[in-house]
This record gives sequence, C-alpha cells and structure tokens, in this order.
Amino acid sequence: MPVSKFLRVNTATREVKFEEVPEKYLILGGRALTSQLVFDEVPPTCNPLGPFNKLVIAPGMLSGTNAPSSGRMSVGGKSPLTGGIKEANAGGIASQKLANLGIKAIILEGKPQGNDWYLLKVTPAGAELIPANDLAGKGTYEVTAICRERYGPKVAVITIGPAGEMLLPAAGVTNNDSDGNSSRYAGRGGLGAVMGSKKIKAIVVDSPTTFDAPLKEAERFKAAARKFTQILQEHPVTSKGLPNYGTNVLMNIINEAGALPTRNFHFGRFERAAEVSGEKLAEIAVARGGKATHPCHPGCVMRCSNIYPLPNGKVCAPIEYESAWALGPNLEIDSLDVIGQLNYLCNDYGLDTIETGVTLGVLMEAGVIPFGDGEAAIKALEEVARGTPLGRIIGSGAATAGRVYGVTHVPVVKGQGLPAYDPRGCKGIGVTYATSPMGADHTAGYAVTANILKVGGYVDPHKPEGQVELSRDLQVATAFLDSTGFCLFVAFAVLDNPEGMPTICDLISAKYGISFTVDDALELGKRVLKAEREFNLKAGFTSADDRLPEFFKLEQLPPHNTVFDVRDEDLDQVFNF
Amino acid sequence: MPVSKFLRVNTATREVKFEEVPEKYLILGGRALTSQLVFDEVPPTCNPLGPFNKLVIAPGMLSGTNAPSSGRMSVGGKSPLTGGIKEANAGGIASQKLANLGIKAIILEGKPQGNDWYLLKVTPAGAELIPANDLAGKGTYEVTAICRERYGPKVAVITIGPAGEMLLPAAGVTNNDSDGNSSRYAGRGGLGAVMGSKKIKAIVVDSPTTFDAPLKEAERFKAAARKFTQILQEHPVTSKGLPNYGTNVLMNIINEAGALPTRNFHFGRFERAAEVSGEKLAEIAVARGGKATHPCHPGCVMRCSNIYPLPNGKVCAPIEYESAWALGPNLEIDSLDVIGQLNYLCNDYGLDTIETGVTLGVLMEAGVIPFGDGEAAIKALEEVARGTPLGRIIGSGAATAGRVYGVTHVPVVKGQGLPAYDPRGCKGIGVTYATSPMGADHTAGYAVTANILKVGGYVDPHKPEGQVELSRDLQVATAFLDSTGFCLFVAFAVLDNPEGMPTICDLISAKYGISFTVDDALELGKRVLKAEREFNLKAGFTSADDRLPEFFKLEQLPPHNTVFDVRDEDLDQVFNF
Repeated sequence: MPVSKFLRVNTATREVKFEEVPEKYLILGGRALTSQLVFDEVPPTCNPLGPFNKLVIAPGMLSGTNAPSSGRMSVGGKSPLTGGIKEANAGGIASQKLANLGIKAIILEGKPQGNDWYLLKVTPAGAELIPANDLAGKGTYEVTAICRERYGPKVAVITIGPAGEMLLPAAGVTNNDSDGNSSRYAGRGGLGAVMGSKKIKAIVVDSPTTFDAPLKEAERFKAAARKFTQILQEHPVTSKGLPNYGTNVLMNIINEAGALPTRNFHFGRFERAAEVSGEKLAEIAVARGGKATHPCHPGCVMRCSNIYPLPNGKVCAPIEYESAWALGPNLEIDSLDVIGQLNYLCNDYGLDTIETGVTLGVLMEAGVIPFGDGEAAIKALEEVARGTPLGRIIGSGAATAGRVYGVTHVPVVKGQGLPAYDPRGCKGIGVTYATSPMGADHTAGYAVTANILKVGGYVDPHKPEGQVELSRDLQVATAFLDSTGFCLFVAFAVLDNPEGMPTICDLISAKYGISFTVDDALELGKRVLKAEREFNLKAGFTSADDRLPEFFKLEQLPPHNTVFDVRDEDLDQVFNF
Repeated sequence: MPVSKFLRVNTATREVKFEEVPEKYLILGGRALTSQLVFDEVPPTCNPLGPFNKLVIAPGMLSGTNAPSSGRMSVGGKSPLTGGIKEANAGGIASQKLANLGIKAIILEGKPQGNDWYLLKVTPAGAELIPANDLAGKGTYEVTAICRERYGPKVAVITIGPAGEMLLPAAGVTNNDSDGNSSRYAGRGGLGAVMGSKKIKAIVVDSPTTFDAPLKEAERFKAAARKFTQILQEHPVTSKGLPNYGTNVLMNIINEAGALPTRNFHFGRFERAAEVSGEKLAEIAVARGGKATHPCHPGCVMRCSNIYPLPNGKVCAPIEYESAWALGPNLEIDSLDVIGQLNYLCNDYGLDTIETGVTLGVLMEAGVIPFGDGEAAIKALEEVARGTPLGRIIGSGAATAGRVYGVTHVPVVKGQGLPAYDPRGCKGIGVTYATSPMGADHTAGYAVTANILKVGGYVDPHKPEGQVELSRDLQVATAFLDSTGFCLFVAFAVLDNPEGMPTICDLISAKYGISFTVDDALELGKRVLKAEREFNLKAGFTSADDRLPEFFKLEQLPPHNTVFDVRDEDLDQVFNF
C-alpha cells in the first residue's frame, strides 16, 4: 500500500489502480480536493448519471489524526439533483480509516454496461472489486451489518441504499459510526445516485489504525491539537449545547426566533415544536435506554449525536435537528416517534432526510398526503423501496414533486430543497441558500450564527443589510473548514475565539510541514468557491439560479410578517472577492 | 367592439377590458406578437405557473383574410416545460374568428386565489367571464360539444383538458375545426398548464364573419391571394403530397432515409413503418367512412388533415405524422388503431402528442411499460385523467420521467421532447433542436426540407457541414412565417418558388397599407428570434442549453451508423446574424 495515493476505479473496465498524487493536490483534502478533482476531470455539461461523471470520496486534510472532531469525509461529483457541482460531507469512521491507509481520494469513474453490482474492498493489502449482487436491493443497515460480519466489526462501510440503486436524485452516500450504525450521510445532492450509476453498492475500508495519519511535525501537532480541544471545551455551544442535547437543541431556539419553517414554509413557528425538541428527545431517548449524546466518530469532543430507540424495536441513531425539522414541523408532525420512523426509513433506503422532508411537504401542499398525518407519510415513504411511481417521485426531490403536481410553493434553490431555517426569518441564511454553488444548503454559510445564535457577532435577521457580507465571509470560511475534515460545528468556537483559526492553521502546518497561515486558509476557501462557481457557470448556471423562489418575496412569514428582501443586485455581489 | 384591440383579462380581479393597440404592435401578429408581448410584459425569471406569467393568444398578421391557409393561431407565454419563452401555433377556426372581431391578442394575466373555473366569452358585443365549474374535469371533446350547443355550432372553442387543469407541463391549448373537432393543438411547451393556472377552462369566440378582417388595399390583396394560391397549387408537396396523404406521407419517406426515431431513438428505421404510414392511414380511413384529407380551417388549400374512425366508434381527427410517429414507431407500436386511440386520449386530456409519446418512450426505456405494448400504453395514458402518480409523471414530460426513473437515454432539449426526426440521421434538424429558443422543435427550422425532401436545395443529412447555415436561414424564415398566420407548410412551395416570399410580403403590404419587403420579413424574423433569445438569456439559459443530449454524440444510429457531430462552437454561431 503506497502512502498518499489516489485510488482510481474504472467501473466500466473494472480496473482498480493506485496513483501517485500530483503535486497540486498534495496538501488538499475534503471539499477542496473533491471540488478540484471534479473541476479538473468532469465535463461540466455531462449527464450526472452518465459515463463522464465521477464520484470522488476524500478524507479531510486533517482526518486520521487526533485533531478533535476532524473525521469528516467529503463526497463530490456533478449532482443529479442540482445539475451543478456537489460536495457533501459526513461524519462516521470511514474518513479516518481512509486517511490512515494513505488514501487521499477514491475516484469512481466510467459507467458499466451490465446489471452487476460490485463492492470495493480497501485494506492495507490493496484494493479490489468484489461481485456484490447479493447486496443489491438491501437497505443500508443490512448491508452494513453483512459487511461487518464478513470483513470484521471494525470496518467502515460506505454504502448506498435502494434509492441510490434506483438512481434517485435525493439519494445519499452513507457510512457508519463505531457502533455499526449506518447513518452518517453525505446526504445532499443525489451523490448516492452517482454511486449507483457506477454500480458500486458499497466500499469497505479496513484499517488497523485510526489516528496514525503521518505528521511531519508530530510534537507541534500534538500541542496544537490539545489547544484546539481546549478551545472547543471553552465555548458554550460546543461544550454544552451540542454535547447535552445534540443539534436538535436548535428546535426551540429557531422556533422562538420565528424562523422554523412550518407546514411547507407557510409559517415561522410551530406551536408544538417543544414536543419534537432536543430536550424532549433526550428525555425520551434516555428513558428508553438510548443515549442523549454520542460521538459519530472516535475523537469527537462535541458528541452531538444521539441514539433514539423507536417503539417498533428499531433504533434511529441519530435524529438530527435538520431531520427532526424536515420530517416534523415542516409536515406539521409533532411526534418524535413518527419522525424517528421516517428518519430510520430514509437512512435505510439511502435518502437525504432534508430533501425527503421537503418533498413530503410539497406533496402535502399538493394534497397527496394530509399535513400532520404521520402514518400517511410513513406509508408514502415506504413506497420508495418498492419503486412505485409515487415512491420514485418522493425520491426525486422537491423540485420534481412540485413540477409533477403543479405546485408553485416549492422551497428549492438550484433544484435542492431548503433546510430548517426560513430565509424570511433569517435573511443571512437566505443569502447562502440563494448563492451557494451547492444549491440551498445551510452548512455552506451558516448565517444562523450571527442572525440568531449571536455567535461571531450579531446581524439583525429581519433586515436585508449586512447579510451579503455575513454570508460571503461564512461561505469562504466554510469552504476551507469543509476541506480540513473538521466538523462544521467547530465554527461556533472558532468564530468567537481569535485563537481558533490560527490553531487550525498550526495543525495543518504541523501535519504537512509547511507554513500555512490564516490568509492561506481564506485563500483556499476562495479558491474552492471559485472553482465550484466556474464549474457551475460552464454547466449552464447564471445569476438567475442564484435566487430564492418567487414566493419568498411575495408571501409574508408569520409571526414577524417579513418577506425576503435582499436585493438581487446584492446577491450578485456575494462572490466579489 | 373596437377595431384592432387587445383583450386583457386580469384573472385575479376578473377585470376584462379592451385596450388600444400601441403603435409598436400594430402590424405584428402570431409569434411576433406573442413573443414581443411576453418579452415586454413577463419577467423572465418568474414562476411559469405563478401570477407574473401571462398567456397571450394572437391570430397571425394575415389571419381572417382569404389568403390561403393563413388561419394559424399563436399561443405564447413562459413555458412550464422548458422554463423559457414559448410560442406554439395551431390551425382550427379560432384565429380567423378572433381576427374578424378585430382582436390582435387576448392576454390572460394574474392568478386567481380560489378554485373556481371560468369561461371567457368573446362576441361582437364584447367579452365576459362566465363561471364554468360545470366544465371542470371534462375532456376537450365534451367541453367543445357543450360550448357549441350553448353558444352555437359556429363558435370557436379554445380550451384545455384535465391535463391543463392539473397544471401538467405537457398540457396544450386546443381549438376546433369547422366540424367541431377539438384537435387543433398549440401543443408544445405546456401552455395549457399556464391557461390552467389562470383558471380559464375555455375561451369561446363567436364571430359572424371568417374572411372579413380589414384590408387597406382590397384589390391588391385579392390579386396577391390568388397568386399565392396558385404558387401552392404548383408545388408537388403542397398540391399532391399533403393533400393526398396528409403529413403522415412522411412516415415512409423518413423511414427510408433512416431517420425515423424508433424504440426511443435507438434505431433510425422501423421495419413495420408501412403499417402506420400515411398511405395505410388513407386506406383504412376511407374504408371506414372517414376521410384521407380534410382542411383544419376554411380556406386551406393543402387539406393535410384527416378523419380516422376508431374501432371503438370514436373518431380521431386527425392523426398527424408527428403523433403517428411519437405514439407509433417511437414505442415500437405498429397499429394505427392503437396510435389513433392514444392520439384521441391525448387530444381529449389536452396533452401534447409529441411530448406524451416521447415520455412513454422513456418509460418504456425504464421498463415501466413494455416496448410495443399498445394496450399497456393506453392503460398508462388513461392514468393521466385520473391524476395518479404515474399519470402525472406522463403529463410532466420526458425530462421529468427520465429524472424520476433514472434514465439517461432521454431525447430532450431544454426539457422538451424531440420530434420525429433523429438528429443523427438529419443533422440540420439536430441544429434546430439544439438551438431553437423553443426547445426541441421541428417546426422552428424544418431542415428536413433540404436534408431529406430536397426542397429548397440539398444539404447532405449525414455531414455536419452546412447544417448551421441551413438551420439559421430556416429559423429566421420560420419566425417570420409563424407571425403571418400562414401554415408552415406553405414553406415547401415558398422555398422552391422565387415568387413565394415577395407574394407573402405583397399580402402584408396590401393588408396594412405599408411597404413590406422580403428584407423586412427577414428582419422581423431576426427580431423575433432575438427577443426570444434575450428572454431566455434573462431566464437563465446559456449555450449549455443549446446542446443535444450526450447520447446523440456517443451512440451510433443504425442503419447509417452516424453520430451527431456538429461542433459545439458551430452551434453557437446559429444566431450570429
């Protein structure tokens, strides 16, 4: 096994080879690497499910080290959902294992002719494609269990569910946590369908070590890692909010702010939000023998995940805020048990929970399913696995569902469903939704920080002023952070602590034996965004795609009765850097 | 009733008013008028089914006169199918009646809140909105029959079927011929859904006269009309081919040329094409007491329409070539009776036959319906009226069906299904498909003329050379012809007769009392295309949208085993004028 290599798999010829990493990619990782490889190797106008698209999987720059919470895995390609470039990243244990095997990126390319499925097995001894028709059609939980049984309980299993096999645009790529739960999703943008188009059902990664990725300056690195852990432990969000209640601590906060999209983005507050909040979730989970807090990969200090036992004996681990919202208040569903069941099904079928929830909201708007009817929602979602026409519509995402049912109230940007913050009640995130090369994506520039959480300053969420600058700065910083392997949640601490960014840069400098400054970090973030924007430009995107749907400008959002009024010409200034 | 007025209907407030026609629109008609009004009044980025889109219906510049075959009606708006500007035109009797009432255009605007349907009644006495909930849900045949019973057998009924009511992107706008057959479709691009979004189920037009549109120089006009009739009667296509066998005379010709898209564009020849040809159609129709030839509106000398009695007692009038192909060889269906039934259902539901056929082909590619299975196709199509998920997918068009079922072999441009000529076997039409602002549209620049029919010169259909120039010239001429009210089929004669264009210009000069030259005609064509292109540019289209799907460049088409190889940079030169 060579050190620091690309693992390139031609799925048409079934050739599997390791390649030396060209100089220009050497220090890159995560989003910086997937986006650059997609930019360099994928023709922007290609069919996302055709032979010219590629699926790139890359650990972060710092993944596989003991820098805390640095185990994010990036997945990139041209999105079948948006038609643009896509990077989605996930926790779980695969990133660390890949980094410990010296793999900078796995590149799946070509398109096989036949109907046979394969599994890519990656170990210290090398990599091989193994026939896997026996895994086809199976849910991600079962596939992961089978692979752990076959290849050992410590392997990471990167897999797709039936949704990815069916090439559905809302299909994600998942991998498991240390307990074998297959629920760490690079969910957004349909990258599971790209993996499905390559006929790769799963990638099994086996590595004897977790934190042994090579370090050029080991002592310096250890000191910086200790310091960064301390920074995380000093901030209330990363040391208390997230570790106590997980991401779903946001439910009551965003509801209180009047920015919780309710009933398919018709209202900003859900009167029964407390019923599905993080506080309630912790109470139920603990009472049932689950866990209110749990790390998605070794070395995470924030432990924002949870383990929620369902009444049917199954376990949903975790219920994240975005999922709880998408499958809860967005549908006027007020039961964590129903939300948990829907979430479990999404995970098992290999569907993005956000896109699925937004799509169900659109179908409720169309009258196909009644708002608030959890049982009907579960029944509809179960159709995905059966591949019925309705099931396929659900798996095709909100824009398609809106088109098929003639709905105009469809919350999407660039064809991707909006996450859990109404852009009329939190205008900074609205700017991010509108302009991110990823389509509507809260993680791309999480302006909820300054708009609502008062982290990293304060910008009035209801005023258009200052939102473009806020979103721009956050998008640049995020494009960098998404490249490091760090969980985005470190940003809460980093934004409020002047030592944060320099410490991250110190970690990078020590790992690679270079001098990497905060300026370098921001330059890298800008470079990533520019490559992504240029890819999209060549793919046919224009400023007309950097807009929110019409209804956000026309319909006032209760309770604050605001509309989205950041001007178009200001939105066009976001990437002026 | 004022002379030469716009009839503007605000469907939100239910205000109906006549307006003076501003100077700039005075001599415009048909496509020139609808596209200019859409360009001037519709925000290019608006939601096509939202309050800012408008539906514009306009007779041609010469409609309502006795110029032969000049009764085309243009319908325009922003397309729910392509997201770009759309003009679709149809024969039938509405155009002549509108022109005789002095109505330059009907403009439907705004968006009503409630669920009530209305009928717009237009007579010499004025115009009014009449509640029409009793017509909701009914097919176009029944609606037309009811309206003719209520308002007199001579009225024109412009209507939508259930597909338009359901806001489906493949829904068209129809009107009837003199016999009351509701089958003259402005089919393409989903304008029926725009009409549905305005909650206008039908427009009834009652005019005492047909050929009395005002003429500034009546004698000169009459002489030119006589001359133009003679020109049409001298050309073999317009005097023999079309009058004997209708448009479906093309079936054997295009099959022989190896450009007949068969089995969802996998082959260029269908071995059973003769079974569904115009010759066969004429034989069956006549034997059953139908008609092999029939005019779609008074004053047509080409009479390319037909009346095909179905075994179930109903009548499909007509089966056009494009419909026979889309619902026949494209699906490997070899029975005119099955094609006729599918065509009848499309007409009754208010669906574009081309888009529907292409969509069924994609669903067959996906394995949802078996290729060649007519009964299964009929059963699937019937689901549209019931609004089932599959029915709605069918009504949403081929691009959406491909997306929902993960099909990459989807023949669409700008989201609109390709018509009955494979662009690999007829590369000039491929250039038109790729570049027309309308999306894939054979009528926008019918290069089949020089490529296959050897009308207006000859350009080898299998070579990339000369196709861009051919398509450009035809697109310019067509944008003009679509504005006159003339049926596009006059082009066969006009292309081969140097007197053709000057005579058309003479007709316009005489009608409007101006000096209108062939240069003016071409200038008008260019102006129309420029406005349409600019609308699309503002709506977010780029050169990436002026391309054929990937598979046309990768997969050879039997029997000539050609791929589409007109270079991208050459496609980008089409509108350099």
